[in-house]
Parts: sequence; structure tokens; C-alpha cells
Amino acid sequence: MRIAVVAPSCRLTEEAAEAVRAIVARRGDCELMIHPQCFLSAGHFAGPDEARLAALREVMADPSFDAVWFARGGYGSNRIAEAALADLPGAARGKLYLGYSDAGFLLAGLHKAGVEVAWGPMPQDAVRSGGEAAVDRALDWLVRRDPSALEPGLDGPAMAFNLTVLSNLLGTSIEPDFTGVDLLIEDVGEHLYRIDRSMFHVTAVPAIRKVRQIRLGRVSDVLANDPDFGGDEVMIVEDWCARSGIRFGGRADIGHDAANRVVPFLWKTR
Amino acid sequence: MRIAVVAPSCRLTEEAAEAVRAIVARRGDCELMIHPQCFLSAGHFAGPDEARLAALREVMADPSFDAVWFARGGYGSNRIAEAALADLPGAARGKLYLGYSDAGFLLAGLHKAGVEVAWGPMPQDAVRSGGEAAVDRALDWLVRRDPSALEPGLDGPAMAFNLTVLSNLLGTSIEPDFTGVDLLIEDVGEHLYRIDRSMFHVTAVPAIRKVRQIRLGRVSDVLANDPDFGGDEVMIVEDWCARSGIRFGGRADIGHDAANRVVPFLWKTR
Repeated sequence: MRIAVVAPSCRLTEEAAEAVRAIVARRGDCELMIHPQCFLSAGHFAGPDEARLAALREVMADPSFDAVWFARGGYGSNRIAEAALADLPGAARGKLYLGYSDAGFLLAGLHKAGVEVAWGPMPQDAVRSGGEAAVDRALDWLVRRDPSALEPGLDGPAMAFNLTVLSNLLGTSIEPDFTGVDLLIEDVGEHLYRIDRSMFHVTAVPAIRKVRQIRLGRVSDVLANDPDFGGDEVMIVEDWCARSGIRFGGRADIGHDAANRVVPFLWKTR
Repeated sequence: MRIAVVAPSCRLTEEAAEAVRAIVARRGDCELMIHPQCFLSAGHFAGPDEARLAALREVMADPSFDAVWFARGGYGSNRIAEAALADLPGAARGKLYLGYSDAGFLLAGLHKAGVEVAWGPMPQDAVRSGGEAAVDRALDWLVRRDPSALEPGLDGPAMAFNLTVLSNLLGTSIEPDFTGVDLLIEDVGEHLYRIDRSMFHVTAVPAIRKVRQIRLGRVSDVLANDPDFGGDEVMIVEDWCARSGIRFGGRADIGHDAANRVVPFLWKTR
């Protein structure tokens, strides 16, 4: 099992890369190639669009890699998503792509293109408290599709998205088909009024109303609302589900933290 | 000319209400009814959804009012927009509706319903530095459609939106028809990476690609990007216009400030 790491959004830290290399060496069940592009820097991003796109296209087209693992989120994968998906090379189709947060733009587009993708921990998570377990969980899925890595409530086709990322891809060419899926959402570093606004948007869009249900992961590092919003994220999500006629399926074990679980898109365990 | 003020988003301050009443008294060319709902408070909002909706529906249905002036933005008009537009009473159609920022959700829906709307200063702007001129500009438009209140570059059908609000209404039932319009955008209190992400979203949506051009108002109170984004808002908007094949028409004289001008939707001055 050969895994390529590229950074379509923000820069991977050397500290995280070292930690992941140590975990891989300890496991001994896979080979990791951390692409030098991961350490580039250009303003907000891990190198200019051209460099991030070239690295991604390179590993996608290389038949010696079994999986592409996105190094971290932040922001920026949307800037190269459409170009990354153009004229998809045959070798790109036989791989699994794993990541979350901003990488959701690529997961969406790749899934729409018929490629196997999953939401799950990324190399940068290695430096979180408890991050080694997150990295092991991701590798357990990448290397041997270990069911213990999965979000425990999965019982049918599912997708997982950062709520703000989801809101920002609706109506674009990378929007996937949500029909019948369990849609798992989470968010980080937002005010509750923004969570409410994103839930308005997402649940108002007809394409989203085709989901089987929405489940709510963790909403962490919530920014202070002034005045107090007058409710929490569970109330907000339940409220918009009720308004839009979408079933609320309860909580989900995903989030911007070391406990974040794997959600393969359209994985069927029923 | 009788003007009703209601607050579909956040609460109007007493200080701003007093300042606007003084301006109206000095002018003597109109009568202002500040609805008591403007001073309600329920968490983030100027009263619960039901109270904000009831006040809005009340003044919409009252034939003695010539105009409805939204008290301020913030967040929340989207929560009542669809209900406000249901079974539109006849008296609601003969009025002009004025506001900006979060009120854009209502402007969009009302415009789509065939009602006269305009982007422009709101009562809460009275307490900004230079706010009296902003309020006078709004009243000049409300009372006598004074062309000196207009955004100076208008030369054909136009609309104006807060970029983040626009992103959050795309694909919903209140999305208006953008075909052939000059789309004026502005934003406030966002990180540049968020401006970039919203521009990705907006310009990727086919409905927006039908505009004649995009013009950029002021992007104010930009939050610090870590690391530095590597460009400014003009570069960002030019970039996404170029990528999406939308003409960039230069700057626009709108923003979250006292200089904010009036943009009537689909106003034709060519």
C-alpha cells in the first residue's frame, strides 16, 4: 500500500510530517510519500495554485500510488478542484482519496466523478492532542478498510461535509448528488449566527432536501455571538431540519478534533 | 409620504431612532412610523421570528404606507423571508422597500416577487460618523427618487448585495434572476480567505454567470488573515471574474459606511 500526501489547501507543518512518518514506520504496513509541495508557502496557501494542482495531478496520475491523502484543510482546494478533475487520468480512478474540512471541495468533485473518497483524519491532525490515534484511524482505513475507523452510526449511503464548505459548493460544478444519503455535517470557528445562516442556505436548496437525513457532528471553537444567539447548534440544526422537512437523525462522531471518524461517501453497511 | 420602519434582522437602537426622528422633523417632507417591534430583543434578533414577521406583514399590508424601510442589518431576515412573501397582499406591491446588508435576503425575494426594492442606507446608519448624510440620502430616494442618491456608475439594470448574503441565497426560493444586471457587491468583517471562497462560490454558479458585469464596493473591517492572504479584495474579485468569464466593471460606491449609495434593483438610466 503506497500513499501519497499532497496539500491542496494550506501548508503541512514539518512537525506533523515527522509525527506521521514515525507512525508509519512503527506500523510497517504502508509506504508514505509526502510530496515536497506540502511544504511550499505562497500567502495563505501551500504554494501557488499551479504548484498545488501539479502535485495533485502528478500523484493522481501515478499508478504506483493506491491512495491520495490530503495533508490538511484550511482553505484553497476549491481553487484547483475543477482543473484537478478535468480529463481524469485512468490511474486516478483506482485510488482512494481521504481528507476533510476544506478538502471537502475535492471529495465532492472526485465523488461526483465516480472515484472512491472518504472523510477522515489528515496528516496535520498528528499534532493535535490525541492525534496519533486519529492518524492511526485514517491509516487503518487507507490500508485495510478497517470498519473500526468508521463513524459508528453509518447504516446506509452517507457523505460528510464541513457545513460552511458545503454551503459554498452548492450550485457549482462540483456539487454531488445528495439523493438518499445520510448527510453528516460539522463546523469549526464560526459564530452561531453563521451556523444558522449556513443551515438556512443548505436546507433551502432543493438538492439537499433529497437527503435521507442530516446528522450533526461537533461544532467546535464557536466564536462569541454578540448578543448571545439564544440557542445552541443542536437547536439550530433541528430547527432548520423541521422547517425544511428534512429528518434530523441525531449526532455524528465527526469534527475538527482527534476523535474525528471516517465517513466513506456512499459506503453501504446496511 | 408615509414610511414604516421595521427590523427583520437585529434590534434598532434608541439612539439611532432618535437621530432619524430628528432628521425627519428637520426635513418636514415625510412622516415616519418606527414600529415598536424594532426595539424588541430575543437573543440575536429584534424579537422572535413571529414578532418580526408579524410587524413586517402588518406594514406591508397597510395601504397608508408608501415605503418600508428596514431598520438595520445584522442577521435574521432570511428566517422570515419566505413567510413574508407568501400570499403577498395587494397593498404590499405598491410600496418601495429599502435596506442593505442582511436585508438583502428580503430585497432579493421582494424583487423576485415583482416589487420595487432598493439597496441603500438604513436608520441604524444614523449613528455612524457622517450618518446624517446617509439617512438624508436614503430619504431623498424614498421621498422623491432623487437621482443624486444613486450609485454614480449605474448605467443599466443593477442589483447590489453583500457578498456573503448573496452566497447564502443562491439556489434558494428567494434567488432573483440576475440576467443582464450589473451586480454590485461589498462586504464587511470577513477574512480575505472568506471573501475568496465566497467569490469562488458566487462566480461558479451558472445563474450568476448571466450578469452583465460585477462591480466591487468597499470591503471594510477585514479580519487579519494568518498567514497574510497574499493579495487584496480587488485582486480576488478580478481573479474570479477572469476565471469565470464575467466582466469586472471596476469599483462601486457602496459599503458598510456613511457613504453607501442607493442602488434600485433593475433601475434603468441608460
